[in-house]
Amino acid sequence: MSMIKVIKIGGKVIDDESKFNQFLEDFIKIEGMKILVHGGGKIASDVASKLGIETKMLEGRRITDTDMLNVVTMVYGGLVNKKIVAKLQALNCNALGLSGADMNIIRSKKRDPEPVDFGFVGDIESVDGQLINSLLNEGITPVIAPLTHDGNGQLLNTNADNIAGFIATELANEYDVELDLCFDLQGVMNGEKLITEMNLLLYRHLEGIEVIKEGMIPKLDLGFKALNAGAKKVRIVGFDWVNDATKGTRLVK
Amino acid sequence: MSMIKVIKIGGKVIDDESKFNQFLEDFIKIEGMKILVHGGGKIASDVASKLGIETKMLEGRRITDTDMLNVVTMVYGGLVNKKIVAKLQALNCNALGLSGADMNIIRSKKRDPEPVDFGFVGDIESVDGQLINSLLNEGITPVIAPLTHDGNGQLLNTNADNIAGFIATELANEYDVELDLCFDLQGVMNGEKLITEMNLLLYRHLEGIEVIKEGMIPKLDLGFKALNAGAKKVRIVGFDWVNDATKGTRLVK
Repeated sequence: MSMIKVIKIGGKVIDDESKFNQFLEDFIKIEGMKILVHGGGKIASDVASKLGIETKMLEGRRITDTDMLNVVTMVYGGLVNKKIVAKLQALNCNALGLSGADMNIIRSKKRDPEPVDFGFVGDIESVDGQLINSLLNEGITPVIAPLTHDGNGQLLNTNADNIAGFIATELANEYDVELDLCFDLQGVMNGEKLITEMNLLLYRHLEGIEVIKEGMIPKLDLGFKALNAGAKKVRIVGFDWVNDATKGTRLVK
Repeated sequence: MSMIKVIKIGGKVIDDESKFNQFLEDFIKIEGMKILVHGGGKIASDVASKLGIETKMLEGRRITDTDMLNVVTMVYGGLVNKKIVAKLQALNCNALGLSGADMNIIRSKKRDPEPVDFGFVGDIESVDGQLINSLLNEGITPVIAPLTHDGNGQLLNTNADNIAGFIATELANEYDVELDLCFDLQGVMNGEKLITEMNLLLYRHLEGIEVIKEGMIPKLDLGFKALNAGAKKVRIVGFDWVNDATKGTRLVK
């Protein structure tokens, strides 16, 4: 099987142009097929604030009303996505920016408003692995914004970790998939100490004593899901180590 | 040769959701291959204004400084483009939203700052007709935002009429191309009266007496350019007549 690397980049690095340029230079050095899934950093909140739209978060997740959906569609689908694509093209990487609506690549369902109404937030239902496959085989590097659609004309704000995890899971039958969830920290931390290997037992233990909490929980859940679906390697890792296989937290069975 | 329709949609219709939805329903009724190129309507100026960024126009064209480039990248590349794509998908049209940077489909050059500095505005150098061709043959409908890139990482604001005209010109060798430049009026007007046919002589005459002026001049210039390059049919026409071949102003040799 060919190898494919699915990289999710998020966090403060997206707001820091020189760090982000460095990340993209590291990214293009990855040999073979690769997919980049990006978040939106702080920019969406900054733009919303300037537009007089209040950012409401709940359990670390953005509540997406109509105005906020317009903001994330602008910032994720336009500003961040197209800047990445233009930069990758300048590095001779044939990038194609996509939302889930483009070519119907990722279909989702608006999350049930009960018990908590997150607004226009989508939970992924399907990823078109065959289409991703054919793009990769044409030498294209998909750059995916955290936006999906419901097939009825509604765009939905969708967590970038989830998109990366679903793509990794979808491609695991046809490729040796390596999934890197990149962010600002070195990996999963216990205080100052990096946890280099994580299995379900350790995860549940650390979750129980609240060393692992909040945003790290869905990240680990989908990481283990991808691993169980057949992904060859799953890491939670600092954005500057995308080319160093020894770094970060490796998820193991 | 197969027929292809290149439709440019711009003007107030983009800001009017119900009219725009009607336009998209008309658009999908076009049989065979089609390409949609869109402008940004008033939304970019509205968003800029809310963000405290002044919209400066010169000779009917937007001056695009760094802040304004961010705004148009958000609004054209994100908000308008992705909404169109999601709506077309809901209408069973397999749309793919693209900027010129995506897959390097449209390359441009930043306009010389002399005699007038328009900022980050791109003049088109090349359109990848072969790539557009292969997308069309896969049943994809490209939806193109008025953004291009210079190949060195710089996005550039680019007139949507020009993009549509260049694409029509590029495809004229391989297809029977019909180019429709759609906007708010019925076509080219002399006061209240629609001009149903326009040739170069009539154009130059009406330009000389300032019946044709401002934004209509570049529209007609590129329309005639496409016609001379082999486009089978070029119209300047109201957005509600995309399926009525008898309407609008038809350009003739």
